[in-house]
Amino acid sequence: MKVTILGNNSALPAHGRYPTAQVVNISEQLYLIDCGEGTQMRLQQFDVKSSRIDHIFISHIHGDHYLGLVGLISSQSLLGRLRALYIYCPAKIKEYITMQMPWSLGFELHFYILSDSEHTVLLETPKVQISCFPVYHSVPTHGFLFVEKKRKRVLLPNKLKDYEIPKYFYPRLAEGEDYVNNQGETILNEWVTEAGHLPKRYAYCADTRFAPEILTTIHGVDLLYHETTYLSDNHEKAKLRFHTTTIEAATLAKEAQVKSLLIGHFSSKYKDLNPFLSESQSIFNDTMLAIEGQTFEV
Amino acid sequence: MKVTILGNNSALPAHGRYPTAQVVNISEQLYLIDCGEGTQMRLQQFDVKSSRIDHIFISHIHGDHYLGLVGLISSQSLLGRLRALYIYCPAKIKEYITMQMPWSLGFELHFYILSDSEHTVLLETPKVQISCFPVYHSVPTHGFLFVEKKRKRVLLPNKLKDYEIPKYFYPRLAEGEDYVNNQGETILNEWVTEAGHLPKRYAYCADTRFAPEILTTIHGVDLLYHETTYLSDNHEKAKLRFHTTTIEAATLAKEAQVKSLLIGHFSSKYKDLNPFLSESQSIFNDTMLAIEGQTFEV
Repeated sequence: MKVTILGNNSALPAHGRYPTAQVVNISEQLYLIDCGEGTQMRLQQFDVKSSRIDHIFISHIHGDHYLGLVGLISSQSLLGRLRALYIYCPAKIKEYITMQMPWSLGFELHFYILSDSEHTVLLETPKVQISCFPVYHSVPTHGFLFVEKKRKRVLLPNKLKDYEIPKYFYPRLAEGEDYVNNQGETILNEWVTEAGHLPKRYAYCADTRFAPEILTTIHGVDLLYHETTYLSDNHEKAKLRFHTTTIEAATLAKEAQVKSLLIGHFSSKYKDLNPFLSESQSIFNDTMLAIEGQTFEV
Repeated sequence: MKVTILGNNSALPAHGRYPTAQVVNISEQLYLIDCGEGTQMRLQQFDVKSSRIDHIFISHIHGDHYLGLVGLISSQSLLGRLRALYIYCPAKIKEYITMQMPWSLGFELHFYILSDSEHTVLLETPKVQISCFPVYHSVPTHGFLFVEKKRKRVLLPNKLKDYEIPKYFYPRLAEGEDYVNNQGETILNEWVTEAGHLPKRYAYCADTRFAPEILTTIHGVDLLYHETTYLSDNHEKAKLRFHTTTIEAATLAKEAQVKSLLIGHFSSKYKDLNPFLSESQSIFNDTMLAIEGQTFEV
Protein backbone atom coordinates (compact mmCIF):
# COMPACT_ATOMS: atom_id res chain seq x y z
CA MET A 1 0.00 0.00 0.00
CA LYS A 2 1.42 3.34 -1.12
CA VAL A 3 0.11 6.91 -1.08
CA THR A 4 0.97 9.48 -3.78
CA ILE A 5 0.26 13.12 -3.04
CA LEU A 6 -1.34 15.06 -5.92
CA GLY A 7 -2.29 18.24 -4.05
CA ASN A 8 -1.25 19.37 -0.57
CA ASN A 9 -2.57 22.90 -0.26
CA SER A 10 -5.65 24.24 1.44
CA ALA A 11 -8.46 26.08 -0.37
CA LEU A 12 -6.43 28.73 -2.15
CA PRO A 13 -3.82 27.25 -4.54
CA ALA A 14 -0.45 28.94 -4.00
CA HIS A 15 3.32 28.56 -4.40
CA GLY A 16 2.74 25.97 -7.13
CA ARG A 17 0.77 23.83 -4.67
CA TYR A 18 -2.59 22.37 -5.70
CA PRO A 19 -5.76 21.68 -3.69
CA THR A 20 -6.26 18.34 -1.98
CA ALA A 21 -6.02 15.04 -3.83
CA GLN A 22 -4.10 11.83 -3.28
CA VAL A 23 -3.98 8.32 -4.65
CA VAL A 24 -3.75 5.12 -2.61
CA ASN A 25 -2.14 2.29 -4.56
CA ILE A 26 -2.88 -1.27 -3.44
CA SER A 27 -1.27 -3.76 -5.83
CA GLU A 28 -1.74 -1.32 -8.75
CA GLN A 29 -5.44 -0.83 -7.96
CA LEU A 30 -5.73 2.93 -7.40
CA TYR A 31 -8.11 4.69 -5.01
CA LEU A 32 -8.46 8.46 -5.28
CA ILE A 33 -9.12 10.43 -2.12
CA ASP A 34 -10.51 13.91 -2.75
CA CYS A 35 -10.25 15.53 -6.14
CA GLY A 36 -9.45 19.25 -6.02
CA GLU A 37 -9.25 21.39 -9.16
CA GLY A 38 -6.43 20.25 -11.42
CA THR A 39 -6.30 16.65 -10.15
CA GLN A 40 -6.40 15.24 -13.69
CA MET A 41 -3.41 17.40 -14.64
CA ARG A 42 -1.53 16.28 -11.53
CA LEU A 43 -2.22 12.62 -12.35
CA GLN A 44 -0.67 13.21 -15.77
CA GLN A 45 2.29 15.17 -14.42
CA PHE A 46 3.11 12.51 -11.84
CA ASP A 47 2.55 9.70 -14.33
CA VAL A 48 -0.29 8.06 -12.40
CA LYS A 49 -2.61 6.06 -14.62
CA SER A 50 -6.08 7.55 -14.12
CA SER A 51 -7.62 4.56 -15.90
CA ARG A 52 -6.63 2.43 -12.89
CA ILE A 53 -8.84 4.47 -10.56
CA ASP A 54 -12.18 2.73 -10.03
CA HIS A 55 -13.15 4.27 -6.70
CA ILE A 56 -13.13 7.92 -5.65
CA PHE A 57 -13.73 9.08 -2.08
CA ILE A 58 -14.74 12.70 -1.40
CA SER A 59 -14.41 13.88 2.19
CA HIS A 60 -16.75 16.89 2.11
CA ILE A 61 -18.42 19.51 -0.09
CA HIS A 62 -15.78 22.24 -0.03
CA GLY A 63 -14.59 23.08 -3.54
CA ASP A 64 -10.92 22.40 -2.91
CA HIS A 65 -11.83 18.76 -2.32
CA TYR A 66 -14.07 18.05 -5.30
CA LEU A 67 -13.83 20.68 -8.09
CA GLY A 68 -11.66 18.42 -10.26
CA LEU A 69 -14.31 15.69 -10.44
CA VAL A 70 -16.30 16.82 -13.50
CA GLY A 71 -13.12 17.30 -15.51
CA LEU A 72 -11.66 13.96 -14.43
CA ILE A 73 -14.87 12.06 -15.22
CA SER A 74 -15.29 13.79 -18.62
CA SER A 75 -11.70 12.99 -19.51
CA GLN A 76 -12.17 9.32 -18.58
CA SER A 77 -14.99 9.25 -21.09
CA LEU A 78 -12.87 10.94 -23.77
CA LEU A 79 -10.12 8.42 -23.06
CA GLY A 80 -12.53 5.62 -23.91
CA ARG A 81 -13.10 4.23 -20.43
CA LEU A 82 -15.58 1.36 -20.26
CA ARG A 83 -15.23 0.18 -16.64
CA ALA A 84 -17.68 1.57 -14.09
CA LEU A 85 -16.51 4.33 -11.77
CA TYR A 86 -17.68 4.48 -8.16
CA ILE A 87 -17.87 7.74 -6.26
CA TYR A 88 -18.37 7.87 -2.49
CA CYS A 89 -19.41 11.40 -1.60
CA PRO A 90 -21.88 13.70 0.14
CA ALA A 91 -25.32 13.95 -1.55
CA LYS A 92 -24.67 17.49 -2.79
CA ILE A 93 -21.64 16.40 -4.80
CA LYS A 94 -23.71 13.82 -6.64
CA GLU A 95 -26.14 16.61 -7.47
CA TYR A 96 -23.37 18.92 -8.77
CA ILE A 97 -21.83 16.21 -10.92
CA THR A 98 -24.99 14.82 -12.45
CA MET A 99 -26.26 18.32 -13.18
CA GLN A 100 -23.10 19.15 -15.11
CA MET A 101 -22.99 15.82 -16.97
CA PRO A 102 -26.41 15.35 -18.48
CA TRP A 103 -24.98 13.48 -21.45
CA SER A 104 -24.22 9.77 -21.36
CA LEU A 105 -20.70 8.64 -20.59
CA GLY A 106 -19.17 5.57 -22.14
CA PHE A 107 -19.21 3.92 -18.70
CA GLU A 108 -21.43 3.64 -15.65
CA LEU A 109 -21.08 6.18 -12.88
CA HIS A 110 -22.22 4.93 -9.48
CA PHE A 111 -22.65 7.09 -6.43
CA TYR A 112 -22.57 5.96 -2.83
CA ILE A 113 -23.84 8.76 -0.59
CA LEU A 114 -21.88 9.25 2.61
CA SER A 115 -24.16 9.78 5.58
CA ASP A 116 -23.17 11.73 8.63
CA SER A 117 -23.22 9.19 11.39
CA GLU A 118 -21.11 6.16 12.06
CA HIS A 119 -17.94 4.37 11.08
CA THR A 120 -19.22 2.59 7.95
CA VAL A 121 -17.63 0.06 5.63
CA LEU A 122 -17.79 1.38 2.05
CA LEU A 123 -15.96 -1.26 0.10
CA GLU A 124 -14.54 -4.77 0.53
CA THR A 125 -12.22 -6.25 -2.06
CA PRO A 126 -10.04 -9.36 -1.76
CA LYS A 127 -7.18 -7.06 -0.76
CA VAL A 128 -8.63 -4.20 1.25
CA GLN A 129 -11.48 -2.96 3.36
CA ILE A 130 -12.24 0.75 3.04
CA SER A 131 -14.45 2.54 5.53
CA CYS A 132 -15.41 6.10 6.39
CA PHE A 133 -15.75 7.71 9.78
CA PRO A 134 -16.85 11.19 10.88
CA VAL A 135 -14.27 13.90 11.46
CA TYR A 136 -15.15 17.41 12.62
CA HIS A 137 -15.14 20.29 10.14
CA SER A 138 -17.49 23.23 9.49
CA VAL A 139 -19.59 20.96 7.26
CA PRO A 140 -20.20 17.19 7.57
CA THR A 141 -16.88 15.56 6.70
CA HIS A 142 -15.53 12.03 6.60
CA GLY A 143 -12.15 10.51 7.16
CA PHE A 144 -11.27 7.26 5.40
CA LEU A 145 -9.63 4.11 6.72
CA PHE A 146 -7.89 1.59 4.45
CA VAL A 147 -7.24 -1.80 6.05
CA GLU A 148 -5.42 -4.49 4.10
CA LYS A 149 -6.93 -7.94 4.32
CA LYS A 150 -5.04 -10.51 6.37
CA ARG A 151 -1.96 -11.34 4.33
CA LYS A 152 -1.71 -14.85 2.95
CA ARG A 153 0.84 -17.21 4.50
CA VAL A 154 4.16 -17.44 2.69
CA LEU A 155 4.92 -20.91 1.22
CA LEU A 156 8.33 -22.49 1.96
CA PRO A 157 9.44 -24.24 -1.31
CA ASN A 158 11.83 -26.74 0.32
CA LYS A 159 9.26 -27.85 2.86
CA LEU A 160 6.59 -28.25 0.19
CA LYS A 161 8.97 -30.59 -1.60
CA ASP A 162 9.91 -32.52 1.57
CA TYR A 163 6.25 -33.17 2.37
CA GLU A 164 5.37 -33.83 -1.31
CA ILE A 165 2.42 -31.46 -1.35
CA PRO A 166 0.73 -31.24 -4.76
CA LYS A 167 0.66 -27.85 -6.46
CA TYR A 168 -3.12 -27.64 -6.66
CA PHE A 169 -3.19 -27.34 -2.87
CA TYR A 170 -0.80 -24.35 -2.64
CA PRO A 171 -3.56 -21.67 -2.67
CA ARG A 172 -5.29 -23.42 0.24
CA LEU A 173 -2.01 -23.58 2.15
CA ALA A 174 -1.65 -19.83 1.61
CA GLU A 175 -5.08 -19.43 3.22
CA GLY A 176 -3.85 -21.37 6.28
CA GLU A 177 -5.31 -24.86 5.68
CA ASP A 178 -3.54 -28.05 6.76
CA TYR A 179 -2.92 -30.76 4.17
CA VAL A 180 -3.90 -34.42 4.51
CA ASN A 181 -1.93 -36.74 2.23
CA ASN A 182 -2.92 -40.07 0.61
CA GLN A 183 -1.63 -41.98 3.63
CA GLY A 184 -4.08 -40.01 5.82
CA GLU A 185 -1.26 -38.09 7.53
CA THR A 186 -1.95 -34.43 8.41
CA ILE A 187 0.76 -31.97 7.40
CA LEU A 188 0.28 -28.96 9.64
CA ASN A 189 0.17 -25.63 7.83
CA GLU A 190 2.89 -24.15 10.05
CA TRP A 191 5.35 -26.90 8.94
CA VAL A 192 5.29 -25.70 5.32
CA THR A 193 4.45 -21.98 5.51
CA GLU A 194 5.34 -18.94 7.54
CA ALA A 195 3.29 -15.88 8.51
CA GLY A 196 2.82 -13.12 5.95
CA HIS A 197 3.34 -9.48 6.85
CA LEU A 198 0.83 -7.90 9.16
CA PRO A 199 -2.03 -6.19 7.32
CA LYS A 200 -1.24 -2.48 6.86
CA ARG A 201 -3.64 0.30 7.83
CA TYR A 202 -3.85 3.83 6.46
CA ALA A 203 -6.08 6.63 7.81
CA TYR A 204 -6.94 9.91 6.07
CA CYS A 205 -8.25 12.83 8.12
CA ALA A 206 -9.03 16.13 6.35
CA ASP A 207 -10.51 18.61 6.87
CA THR A 208 -10.99 18.52 10.61
CA ARG A 209 -10.42 20.33 13.85
CA PHE A 210 -8.25 18.59 16.46
CA ALA A 211 -10.51 15.62 17.22
CA PRO A 212 -9.64 13.22 20.06
CA GLU A 213 -12.98 11.59 19.16
CA ILE A 214 -11.20 9.68 16.37
CA LEU A 215 -8.42 8.22 18.55
CA THR A 216 -9.97 4.76 18.72
CA THR A 217 -10.51 4.60 14.96
CA ILE A 218 -6.98 5.57 14.01
CA HIS A 219 -5.23 3.78 16.88
CA GLY A 220 -2.01 2.13 15.79
CA VAL A 221 -2.39 2.72 12.04
CA ASP A 222 0.79 2.38 10.02
CA LEU A 223 0.34 5.78 8.38
CA LEU A 224 -1.91 8.64 9.42
CA TYR A 225 -2.50 11.46 6.95
CA HIS A 226 -3.74 14.42 8.96
CA GLU A 227 -4.38 17.98 7.90
CA THR A 228 -2.22 20.70 9.43
CA THR A 229 -3.58 23.87 7.87
CA TYR A 230 -1.71 26.10 10.33
CA LEU A 231 1.42 26.32 12.44
CA SER A 232 0.85 26.27 16.17
CA ASP A 233 0.82 30.04 16.65
CA ASN A 234 -2.41 30.09 14.64
CA HIS A 235 -4.08 27.87 17.19
CA GLU A 236 -7.08 30.18 17.62
CA LYS A 237 -7.66 30.60 13.91
CA ALA A 238 -7.45 26.83 13.44
CA LYS A 239 -10.10 26.32 16.11
CA LEU A 240 -12.38 28.97 14.62
CA ARG A 241 -12.15 27.45 11.14
CA PHE A 242 -12.31 23.80 12.20
CA HIS A 243 -8.75 23.12 11.13
CA THR A 244 -5.74 21.61 12.91
CA THR A 245 -2.27 22.87 13.81
CA THR A 246 1.00 20.94 13.59
CA ILE A 247 1.18 20.46 17.34
CA GLU A 248 -2.38 19.20 17.52
CA ALA A 249 -1.92 16.69 14.69
CA ALA A 250 1.35 15.46 16.19
CA THR A 251 -0.28 15.12 19.60
CA LEU A 252 -3.06 13.06 18.08
CA ALA A 253 -0.53 10.85 16.25
CA LYS A 254 1.37 10.30 19.48
CA GLU A 255 -1.70 9.50 21.57
CA ALA A 256 -3.04 7.17 18.85
CA GLN A 257 0.35 5.44 18.75
CA VAL A 258 0.43 5.51 14.96
CA LYS A 259 3.66 4.45 13.25
CA SER A 260 4.07 7.47 10.94
CA LEU A 261 2.37 10.80 10.42
CA LEU A 262 1.98 12.49 7.04
CA ILE A 263 0.89 16.14 7.20
CA GLY A 264 -0.71 18.31 4.53
CA HIS A 265 -3.48 20.78 3.57
CA PHE A 266 -1.17 23.72 4.18
CA SER A 267 -2.55 27.25 4.24
CA SER A 268 -1.51 29.44 1.31
CA LYS A 269 -0.06 31.93 3.80
CA TYR A 270 2.97 29.65 4.21
CA LYS A 271 5.48 29.43 1.40
CA ASP A 272 8.11 27.53 3.42
CA LEU A 273 6.83 24.21 4.75
CA ASN A 274 9.83 23.31 6.89
CA PRO A 275 8.39 24.86 10.05
CA PHE A 276 5.46 22.42 9.71
CA LEU A 277 7.91 19.53 9.83
CA SER A 278 9.97 20.80 12.75
CA GLU A 279 6.98 21.78 14.88
CA SER A 280 5.30 18.45 14.34
CA GLN A 281 8.50 16.48 14.91
CA SER A 282 9.00 18.23 18.24
CA ILE A 283 6.00 16.18 19.44
CA PHE A 284 6.01 13.19 17.10
CA ASN A 285 9.32 12.40 15.45
CA ASP A 286 8.15 10.16 12.62
CA THR A 287 6.41 12.96 10.72
CA MET A 288 6.68 13.56 6.97
CA LEU A 289 5.53 16.45 4.78
CA ALA A 290 2.97 15.46 2.12
CA ILE A 291 4.96 16.88 -0.79
CA GLU A 292 3.19 16.80 -4.14
CA GLY A 293 4.48 14.11 -6.47
CA GLN A 294 6.02 12.10 -3.62
CA THR A 295 4.95 8.56 -2.80
CA PHE A 296 4.87 7.19 0.75
CA GLU A 297 4.89 3.51 1.72
CA VAL A 298 2.26 2.68 4.30
CA MET B 1 -4.26 45.52 -26.21
CA LYS B 2 -2.47 42.25 -25.46
CA VAL B 3 -3.58 38.62 -25.18
CA THR B 4 -1.98 36.11 -22.80
CA ILE B 5 -2.68 32.44 -23.36
CA LEU B 6 -3.45 30.45 -20.18
CA GLY B 7 -4.66 27.22 -21.77
CA ASN B 8 -4.46 26.13 -25.42
CA ASN B 9 -5.65 22.53 -25.40
CA SER B 10 -8.99 21.03 -26.30
CA ALA B 11 -11.20 19.09 -23.88
CA LEU B 12 -8.66 16.54 -22.67
CA PRO B 13 -5.62 18.15 -20.98
CA ALA B 14 -2.41 16.61 -22.33
CA HIS B 15 1.32 17.17 -22.85
CA GLY B 16 1.32 19.74 -20.04
CA ARG B 17 -1.28 21.79 -21.93
CA TYR B 18 -4.37 23.09 -20.13
CA PRO B 19 -7.96 23.61 -21.29
CA THR B 20 -9.01 26.92 -22.82
CA ALA B 21 -8.48 30.24 -21.07
CA GLN B 22 -6.89 33.53 -22.05
CA VAL B 23 -6.61 37.06 -20.75
CA VAL B 24 -7.04 40.25 -22.77
CA ASN B 25 -5.12 43.16 -21.25
CA ILE B 26 -6.28 46.67 -22.14
CA SER B 27 -4.26 49.25 -20.20
CA GLU B 28 -3.91 46.82 -17.27
CA GLN B 29 -7.64 46.14 -17.13
CA LEU B 30 -7.90 42.37 -17.63
CA TYR B 31 -10.70 40.49 -19.38
CA LEU B 32 -10.81 36.72 -19.05
CA ILE B 33 -12.12 34.69 -21.98
CA ASP B 34 -13.15 31.17 -21.02
CA CYS B 35 -12.00 29.57 -17.81
CA GLY B 36 -11.07 25.90 -18.14
CA GLU B 37 -10.03 23.79 -15.15
CA GLY B 38 -6.81 25.08 -13.63
CA THR B 39 -7.16 28.66 -14.88
CA GLN B 40 -6.46 30.08 -11.43
CA MET B 41 -3.22 28.08 -11.23
CA ARG B 42 -2.21 29.26 -14.70
CA LEU B 43 -2.85 32.89 -13.71
CA GLN B 44 -0.48 32.38 -10.77
CA GLN B 45 2.15 30.56 -12.81
CA PHE B 46 2.20 33.24 -15.50
CA ASP B 47 2.12 36.04 -12.94
CA VAL B 48 -1.17 37.53 -14.13
CA LYS B 49 -2.99 39.45 -11.38
CA SER B 50 -6.40 37.79 -11.04
CA SER B 51 -7.59 40.72 -8.94
CA ARG B 52 -7.48 42.87 -12.08
CA ILE B 53 -10.08 40.72 -13.81
CA ASP B 54 -13.53 42.31 -13.52
CA HIS B 55 -15.19 40.70 -16.52
CA ILE B 56 -15.26 37.04 -17.56
CA PHE B 57 -16.65 35.83 -20.89
CA ILE B 58 -17.64 32.17 -21.32
CA SER B 59 -18.13 30.99 -24.89
CA HIS B 60 -20.24 27.87 -24.25
CA ILE B 61 -21.20 25.20 -21.75
CA HIS B 62 -18.54 22.58 -22.44
CA GLY B 63 -16.51 21.84 -19.34
CA ASP B 64 -13.12 22.66 -20.82
CA HIS B 65 -14.31 26.26 -21.16
CA TYR B 66 -15.79 26.89 -17.70
CA LEU B 67 -14.77 24.29 -15.09
CA GLY B 68 -12.25 26.67 -13.50
CA LEU B 69 -14.90 29.27 -12.66
CA VAL B 70 -16.03 28.07 -9.22
CA GLY B 71 -12.43 27.75 -8.05
CA LEU B 72 -11.44 31.14 -9.42
CA ILE B 73 -14.44 32.89 -7.87
CA SER B 74 -13.95 31.17 -4.49
CA SER B 75 -10.30 32.14 -4.48
CA GLN B 76 -11.13 35.77 -5.25
CA SER B 77 -13.27 35.74 -2.14
CA LEU B 78 -10.49 34.16 -0.05
CA LEU B 79 -8.10 36.80 -1.40
CA GLY B 80 -10.37 39.50 0.02
CA ARG B 81 -11.82 40.82 -3.21
CA LEU B 82 -14.41 43.58 -2.76
CA ARG B 83 -15.00 44.75 -6.34
CA ALA B 84 -17.93 43.25 -8.24
CA LEU B 85 -17.22 40.51 -10.79
CA TYR B 86 -19.22 40.29 -14.02
CA ILE B 87 -19.72 37.01 -15.82
CA TYR B 88 -21.10 36.83 -19.37
CA CYS B 89 -22.16 33.26 -19.99
CA PRO B 90 -24.87 30.84 -21.09
CA ALA B 91 -27.78 30.45 -18.64
CA LYS B 92 -26.70 26.95 -17.59
CA ILE B 93 -23.32 28.19 -16.38
CA LYS B 94 -25.01 30.69 -14.07
CA GLU B 95 -27.04 27.80 -12.70
CA TYR B 96 -23.94 25.61 -12.12
CA ILE B 97 -22.05 28.41 -10.41
CA THR B 98 -24.80 29.67 -8.13
CA MET B 99 -25.69 26.12 -7.15
CA GLN B 100 -22.13 25.43 -6.03
CA MET B 101 -21.70 28.78 -4.23
CA PRO B 102 -24.68 29.10 -1.93
CA TRP B 103 -22.65 31.07 0.63
CA SER B 104 -22.12 34.80 0.37
CA LEU B 105 -18.94 36.07 -1.23
CA GLY B 106 -17.24 39.24 -0.09
CA PHE B 107 -18.19 40.84 -3.41
CA GLU B 108 -21.09 41.01 -5.85
CA LEU B 109 -21.30 38.47 -8.62
CA HIS B 110 -23.28 39.64 -11.64
CA PHE B 111 -24.34 37.44 -14.50
CA TYR B 112 -25.19 38.55 -18.01
CA ILE B 113 -26.82 35.70 -19.89
CA LEU B 114 -25.67 35.25 -23.48
CA SER B 115 -28.58 34.60 -25.80
CA ASP B 116 -28.27 32.65 -29.01
CA SER B 117 -29.10 35.19 -31.65
CA GLU B 118 -27.36 38.32 -32.82
CA HIS B 119 -24.12 40.24 -32.61
CA THR B 120 -24.70 41.99 -29.27
CA VAL B 121 -22.71 44.62 -27.38
CA LEU B 122 -21.94 43.31 -23.88
CA LEU B 123 -19.80 46.07 -22.43
CA GLU B 124 -18.71 49.62 -23.18
CA THR B 125 -15.88 51.21 -21.22
CA PRO B 126 -13.99 54.42 -22.05
CA LYS B 127 -11.36 52.23 -23.68
CA VAL B 128 -13.11 49.31 -25.30
CA GLN B 129 -16.34 47.92 -26.65
CA ILE B 130 -16.82 44.19 -26.18
CA SER B 131 -19.49 42.29 -28.07
CA CYS B 132 -20.46 38.69 -28.68
CA PHE B 133 -21.54 37.03 -31.90
CA PRO B 134 -22.72 33.51 -32.71
CA VAL B 135 -20.23 30.90 -33.90
CA TYR B 136 -21.20 27.34 -34.83
CA HIS B 137 -20.46 24.49 -32.45
CA SER B 138 -22.44 21.45 -31.26
CA VAL B 139 -24.05 23.64 -28.58
CA PRO B 140 -24.89 27.37 -28.73
CA THR B 141 -21.54 29.16 -28.66
CA HIS B 142 -20.36 32.75 -28.88
CA GLY B 143 -17.29 34.44 -30.23
CA PHE B 144 -16.15 37.73 -28.72
CA LEU B 145 -15.03 40.92 -30.40
CA PHE B 146 -12.91 43.53 -28.62
CA VAL B 147 -12.81 46.95 -30.31
CA GLU B 148 -10.69 49.72 -28.85
CA LYS B 149 -12.34 53.12 -28.69
CA LYS B 150 -11.07 55.75 -31.15
CA ARG B 151 -7.57 56.65 -30.03
CA LYS B 152 -6.97 60.18 -28.79
CA ARG B 153 -4.96 62.54 -31.00
CA VAL B 154 -1.28 62.82 -30.16
CA LEU B 155 -0.16 66.29 -28.97
CA LEU B 156 2.94 67.83 -30.61
CA PRO B 157 4.87 69.59 -27.78
CA ASN B 158 6.74 72.12 -30.00
CA LYS B 159 3.57 73.19 -31.78
CA LEU B 160 1.71 73.60 -28.47
CA LYS B 161 4.51 75.96 -27.40
CA ASP B 162 4.52 77.90 -30.71
CA TYR B 163 0.77 78.52 -30.50
CA GLU B 164 0.92 79.19 -26.74
CA ILE B 165 -1.89 76.82 -25.90
CA PRO B 166 -2.62 76.61 -22.16
CA LYS B 167 -2.20 73.24 -20.49
CA TYR B 168 -5.80 73.04 -19.26
CA PHE B 169 -6.89 72.72 -22.90
CA TYR B 170 -4.64 69.75 -23.72
CA PRO B 171 -7.27 67.05 -22.95
CA ARG B 172 -9.74 68.78 -25.29
CA LEU B 173 -7.10 68.93 -28.03
CA ALA B 174 -6.59 65.18 -27.59
CA GLU B 175 -10.31 64.75 -28.20
CA GLY B 176 -9.99 66.68 -31.48
CA GLU B 177 -11.24 70.17 -30.54
CA ASP B 178 -9.85 73.36 -32.08
CA TYR B 179 -8.54 76.11 -29.76
CA VAL B 180 -9.61 79.75 -29.85
CA ASN B 181 -7.10 82.09 -28.20
CA ASN B 182 -7.60 85.42 -26.39
CA GLN B 183 -7.17 87.29 -29.67
CA GLY B 184 -10.11 85.32 -31.10
CA GLU B 185 -7.87 83.39 -33.48
CA THR B 186 -8.77 79.75 -34.11
CA ILE B 187 -5.88 77.30 -33.85
CA LEU B 188 -6.95 74.24 -35.86
CA ASN B 189 -6.54 70.95 -34.06
CA GLU B 190 -4.51 69.44 -36.91
CA TRP B 191 -1.86 72.22 -36.54
CA VAL B 192 -0.92 71.05 -33.02
CA THR B 193 -1.77 67.32 -32.98
CA GLU B 194 -1.43 64.28 -35.16
CA ALA B 195 -3.66 61.23 -35.52
CA GLY B 196 -3.38 58.54 -32.87
CA HIS B 197 -3.05 54.88 -33.78
CA LEU B 198 -6.05 53.26 -35.35
CA PRO B 199 -8.27 51.51 -32.81
CA LYS B 200 -7.24 47.87 -32.52
CA ARG B 201 -9.67 44.98 -32.89
CA TYR B 202 -9.39 41.45 -31.53
CA ALA B 203 -11.75 38.57 -32.32
CA TYR B 204 -12.01 35.26 -30.45
CA CYS B 205 -13.65 32.26 -32.13
CA ALA B 206 -13.82 28.95 -30.24
CA ASP B 207 -15.23 26.39 -30.39
CA THR B 208 -16.64 26.43 -33.88
CA ARG B 209 -16.76 24.63 -37.18
CA PHE B 210 -15.39 26.44 -40.24
CA ALA B 211 -17.90 29.30 -40.43
CA PRO B 212 -17.84 31.72 -43.37
CA GLU B 213 -20.94 33.21 -41.68
CA ILE B 214 -18.63 35.22 -39.40
CA LEU B 215 -16.52 36.78 -42.17
CA THR B 216 -18.24 40.17 -41.95
CA THR B 217 -17.87 40.34 -38.18
CA ILE B 218 -14.16 39.52 -38.11
CA HIS B 219 -13.25 41.37 -41.33
CA GLY B 220 -9.93 43.17 -41.03
CA VAL B 221 -9.37 42.59 -37.31
CA ASP B 222 -5.80 43.10 -36.11
CA LEU B 223 -5.70 39.70 -34.42
CA LEU B 224 -7.99 36.73 -34.90
CA TYR B 225 -7.85 33.89 -32.37
CA HIS B 226 -9.39 30.88 -34.02
CA GLU B 227 -9.59 27.30 -32.87
CA THR B 228 -7.74 24.66 -34.88
CA THR B 229 -8.54 21.45 -33.06
CA TYR B 230 -7.22 19.28 -35.90
CA LEU B 231 -4.69 19.19 -38.70
CA SER B 232 -6.15 19.20 -42.18
CA ASP B 233 -6.13 15.42 -42.67
CA ASN B 234 -8.77 15.24 -39.94
CA HIS B 235 -11.11 17.37 -41.99
CA GLU B 236 -14.02 14.93 -41.69
CA LYS B 237 -13.65 14.50 -37.95
CA ALA B 238 -13.51 18.27 -37.53
CA LYS B 239 -16.74 18.66 -39.47
CA LEU B 240 -18.46 15.92 -37.50
CA ARG B 241 -17.46 17.46 -34.16
CA PHE B 242 -18.05 21.10 -35.13
CA HIS B 243 -14.36 21.95 -34.96
CA THR B 244 -11.96 23.56 -37.41
CA THR B 245 -8.75 22.47 -39.12
CA THR B 246 -5.62 24.54 -39.70
CA ILE B 247 -6.38 25.00 -43.39
CA GLU B 248 -9.93 26.10 -42.67
CA ALA B 249 -8.92 28.65 -40.03
CA ALA B 250 -6.17 30.02 -42.27
CA THR B 251 -8.58 30.26 -45.20
CA LEU B 252 -11.01 32.20 -43.03
CA ALA B 253 -8.22 34.54 -41.86
CA LYS B 254 -7.18 35.14 -45.45
CA GLU B 255 -10.69 35.79 -46.72
CA ALA B 256 -11.45 38.07 -43.77
CA GLN B 257 -8.22 39.96 -44.48
CA VAL B 258 -7.21 39.92 -40.80
CA LYS B 259 -3.72 41.14 -39.92
CA SER B 260 -2.62 38.15 -37.81
CA LEU B 261 -3.99 34.76 -36.90
CA LEU B 262 -3.49 33.07 -33.53
CA ILE B 263 -4.42 29.38 -33.46
CA GLY B 264 -5.21 27.18 -30.46
CA HIS B 265 -7.54 24.57 -28.89
CA PHE B 266 -5.33 21.74 -30.05
CA SER B 267 -6.51 18.16 -29.79
CA SER B 268 -4.71 16.03 -27.22
CA LYS B 269 -3.79 13.59 -29.99
CA TYR B 270 -1.05 16.00 -31.11
CA LYS B 271 2.07 16.37 -29.00
CA ASP B 272 4.03 18.37 -31.57
CA LEU B 273 2.31 21.62 -32.54
CA ASN B 274 4.66 22.62 -35.35
CA PRO B 275 2.57 20.98 -38.08
CA PHE B 276 -0.30 23.29 -37.03
CA LEU B 277 1.92 26.28 -37.72
CA SER B 278 3.27 25.09 -41.05
CA GLU B 279 -0.10 23.96 -42.39
CA SER B 280 -1.76 27.22 -41.46
CA GLN B 281 1.13 29.33 -42.78
CA SER B 282 0.87 27.56 -46.13
CA ILE B 283 -2.40 29.48 -46.56
CA PHE B 284 -1.98 32.49 -44.28
CA ASN B 285 1.59 33.43 -43.48
CA ASP B 286 1.05 35.63 -40.42
CA THR B 287 -0.05 32.77 -38.18
CA MET B 288 1.14 32.22 -34.62
CA LEU B 289 0.69 29.30 -32.22
CA ALA B 290 -1.18 30.19 -29.02
CA ILE B 291 1.51 28.88 -26.70
CA GLU B 292 0.60 28.89 -22.99
CA GLY B 293 2.28 31.65 -21.04
CA GLN B 294 3.00 33.72 -24.16
CA THR B 295 1.60 37.21 -24.69
CA PHE B 296 0.60 38.54 -28.12
CA GLU B 297 0.23 42.21 -29.04
CA VAL B 298 -2.99 42.89 -30.91
